[in-house]
Amino acid sequence: MPDDTCCRPLEGVVVLDLTHVLAGPYASMGLQDLGARIIKVERPGLGDDTRAFPPFKDGASAYFATINHGKESIALDLRAETDRVIFDQLLERADVILENFRPGVMERLGYGWEALHAWFPNLIYGAVSGFGHTGPDRLRPAYDMVVQARGGVMSITGEKDRDPVRVGASIGDIAAGMFLCQGVLAALYAVKSGAPGQKVDVSMLDSQLALLEHAVAITSVTGHSPRPSGARHPSITPFETFHARDGLFVIAAGNDALFASLCNTLGLPLAEDPRFATNLARCENARLLKRLIEAVTLDQPKQYWIQELQRAGIPTGPIQDVAQVMQDPQILARNMVVDVCDANGHPQYKAAGNPVKLSALPDPVIRRPAPSLDGNRKDILKWLASGATQDDHSDI
Amino acid sequence: MPDDTCCRPLEGVVVLDLTHVLAGPYASMGLQDLGARIIKVERPGLGDDTRAFPPFKDGASAYFATINHGKESIALDLRAETDRVIFDQLLERADVILENFRPGVMERLGYGWEALHAWFPNLIYGAVSGFGHTGPDRLRPAYDMVVQARGGVMSITGEKDRDPVRVGASIGDIAAGMFLCQGVLAALYAVKSGAPGQKVDVSMLDSQLALLEHAVAITSVTGHSPRPSGARHPSITPFETFHARDGLFVIAAGNDALFASLCNTLGLPLAEDPRFATNLARCENARLLKRLIEAVTLDQPKQYWIQELQRAGIPTGPIQDVAQVMQDPQILARNMVVDVCDANGHPQYKAAGNPVKLSALPDPVIRRPAPSLDGNRKDILKWLASGATQDDHSDI
Repeated sequence: MPDDTCCRPLEGVVVLDLTHVLAGPYASMGLQDLGARIIKVERPGLGDDTRAFPPFKDGASAYFATINHGKESIALDLRAETDRVIFDQLLERADVILENFRPGVMERLGYGWEALHAWFPNLIYGAVSGFGHTGPDRLRPAYDMVVQARGGVMSITGEKDRDPVRVGASIGDIAAGMFLCQGVLAALYAVKSGAPGQKVDVSMLDSQLALLEHAVAITSVTGHSPRPSGARHPSITPFETFHARDGLFVIAAGNDALFASLCNTLGLPLAEDPRFATNLARCENARLLKRLIEAVTLDQPKQYWIQELQRAGIPTGPIQDVAQVMQDPQILARNMVVDVCDANGHPQYKAAGNPVKLSALPDPVIRRPAPSLDGNRKDILKWLASGATQDDHSDI
Repeated sequence: MPDDTCCRPLEGVVVLDLTHVLAGPYASMGLQDLGARIIKVERPGLGDDTRAFPPFKDGASAYFATINHGKESIALDLRAETDRVIFDQLLERADVILENFRPGVMERLGYGWEALHAWFPNLIYGAVSGFGHTGPDRLRPAYDMVVQARGGVMSITGEKDRDPVRVGASIGDIAAGMFLCQGVLAALYAVKSGAPGQKVDVSMLDSQLALLEHAVAITSVTGHSPRPSGARHPSITPFETFHARDGLFVIAAGNDALFASLCNTLGLPLAEDPRFATNLARCENARLLKRLIEAVTLDQPKQYWIQELQRAGIPTGPIQDVAQVMQDPQILARNMVVDVCDANGHPQYKAAGNPVKLSALPDPVIRRPAPSLDGNRKDILKWLASGATQDDHSDI
C-alpha cells in the first residue's frame, strides 16, 4: 500500500521511554510503528518487569518481545550521578519522555514535569498511571484488573445473573496506552506548530469510562446501569451468537433491511410479523426470535450459514480463537501478523502488526528484535558523543 | 490543570466527517476534544443512523448526543450537483476528511483517495471499515459483534467451559476509532513537517487483533490459543475477584512483594509456603489459594477489605456499575463526567469526558449540544462565502 514517496510520520522523533509492563510500552510501540526512535531507559539489574513474564522461548519472554521489538535499551540508575549525566544528555536530544511511575517519583528524582519543562520548553512529557496525577486517589496503585472492575467495564461484561468477568484482553492497560499515544501525537503536532511542549496525563481509570459510550448514555437517561447481556448486544436484535449444527456463530442484523434479508435467507416469514417488525419489538421478543432462528440454523453447520448469509450481505462470521485469527486470510493480507526476529534476523515470535495503515508508511511483516537489557548502551553513548543536536534529527 | 498559556493542539484544523454510527464519530470526538472543528456531512432526511438509536430523552437520542456533542452538521446529497458544489468548497477548506463507507463508495462518488489526493495534496483521508480497504474480505459488511467474534476477543472473554461472551463495551468499533484518531494525528504531524497528506486505512478486524498482546504471545510460543478465564488473569495470581461478606471485590497482587504484603494483611502464613512462593506456583495452585483467601475475606464486608488492603499498598478495588463509576470521586475530580447542554445551555445529558489530559488544554465539564440534522448549514455556507482560505485557520 505505501506510495512511491515513503513518509514515516515520526521519522527523527526521539522518545525516552521510562515505562514498563504494558500501558506505556504499548504507547511507545504505537509511536515506533509511526517512525519514532524509542530508547527504553531501564533500571539496572532486572529492567522492565515483563522481561520475567511468561510465556518464554529460549529463556526470553515472548510477552516482552512482542511489545518491545525494535526499541533500544540502556540501563540507568537515575539516583546515581554518573548515570544522571547520561540521562541529562539524552534529555537534550529527546522530543518526548514517557513514564509510568506513581505521581511524585519523577519529582523526587529531580525530573518532574515542572523542572523538565523549564529546562527543555519543547519537551513533551507523557505520563500514564492507575488513577492519573490529580484527584484523591492519585497515589494508589492499580493494575489492569483493578480499573476494569472499578471503571465499569466488568459490570457490563459476562452473563446475566452470573458473576462478572474481565475482558480477556488487558484493556485496562491498552486503552490507556492508546490514549497516551494520542496525547503525545497531539502535543507533537502542537510543538511543530510553534507551541511549547505539554504534559500528557493519562489515567487507566479515566480510560475505562471513556470506552463505555452506550452504557453511559443509558445510565445518563434512565438513571439505571445496564447489566451484562452475555453474547447479545443490549439494544440491537438480532445481534448475538447462534447455534449451528457444529457450534456457535454470529449474526449482526443491525437494521430492518438486514433483518428482512436474514428472514428471506433463512426462509422465515417474520419480517412483517408485528412481534419482530421493528428493532424495539425484536429486542422485546429476543428470546423467542433466537429460538425461531436456531430452529433453522441448527440444521446445517456454521460454515454453511456464514456463506449463505455473506452471500446475502448480512454481517456474520465465526467465533475464532487466537490461533485461527493469526491464520485468517484477511488478517494476513493486511500484514497484521508479523515476525519478530532474533539478532541473526531469523523469525522467532509472531506478534500483532500495526493497525494504523498509512498510505506512505511502509508496512513490513518483519520486526527487529526486542533489546537485551542495556543492549544498546554503546551505540547510544556513541551517538551522544557525536555532537548531533536535537535539530539534526527532529525534522523530516 | 491547564497552564497559563492555553494551547488546543488542533486549533484551526477542519475535519469533514462523513462517518456515522460509532467508530468514525468516536475518532472525530477525539479530534474535537483536542481542538479540531468537526463538520458532520450527513445524508439528507435521516442523517447519522444513531439519531434513531435508543435511549431517547425529549425525543432526541442520548446515544447520538454523547458522541457528537460540539460538532456541526450540514446535510448534503453527494450525488446532487448543487450539493457537490458545496462539498467541493468544503474540501478546499478541510485538513482532514473521514469516511466509513464500504470501500469503493467514495470512488463511485468521484471523491476517492486518488482523486482527492491529486486535487488537494495536503488533505488527509481517514477511512474506517469492517475489514479495511485491502484483502479478500474488504467488501464484506461488519458490525462490532462480527469483529469481536472473528477477531479473537470473544474467545478469551467469559467463563471457562461456558459459551463466550462479548465485551460489554463496543470495543470492535471503539478500538478502530482510536487507531483512526492516532493515524490522523500522525498524518497531521507529517503534513506540518512538510510531507504530503496520506490516506489512513483502519480495519475494525485488524484493531481487535492489536488488542490481544498477551494472547498473541502465548499462541505464538505454545501454538495453543488461550481460553477464557472468567474474572481471573490467565497468568498472574492472585489477580481476580474474591468474595467478601457482602459481595465480590478485586485483588491484584502482581508480584511476590505484593503477595507477601497481602498474606501479612490477611494473617495468612503463605508467603514462604512452596505452593505459593512464586507466581508460577501460585498460578498452579490458584483454586486452592482462592479458597484460603476467601476463608478470611468472607468474614468482613468488601469495603473493610478494600480499605485494609489499600492501607498496605495492595492494588484492590470494588466492582462498580456504570452509575457508581459516574459518581466516583476520582472520576469526578478528573472532569471525566461532563454535561452535554441543550441549545439554551442547560445540562441535558451526562457523557464521558476527555481521557487525554494535556497541561495546556482546557478541560471543561460542559459540552456544547450535538447538532440537529443540517443545523449549521447557514453558518457553514456563510463561512464558505467569506473567502477565508485554508491557511487562515490551519495555523495556530
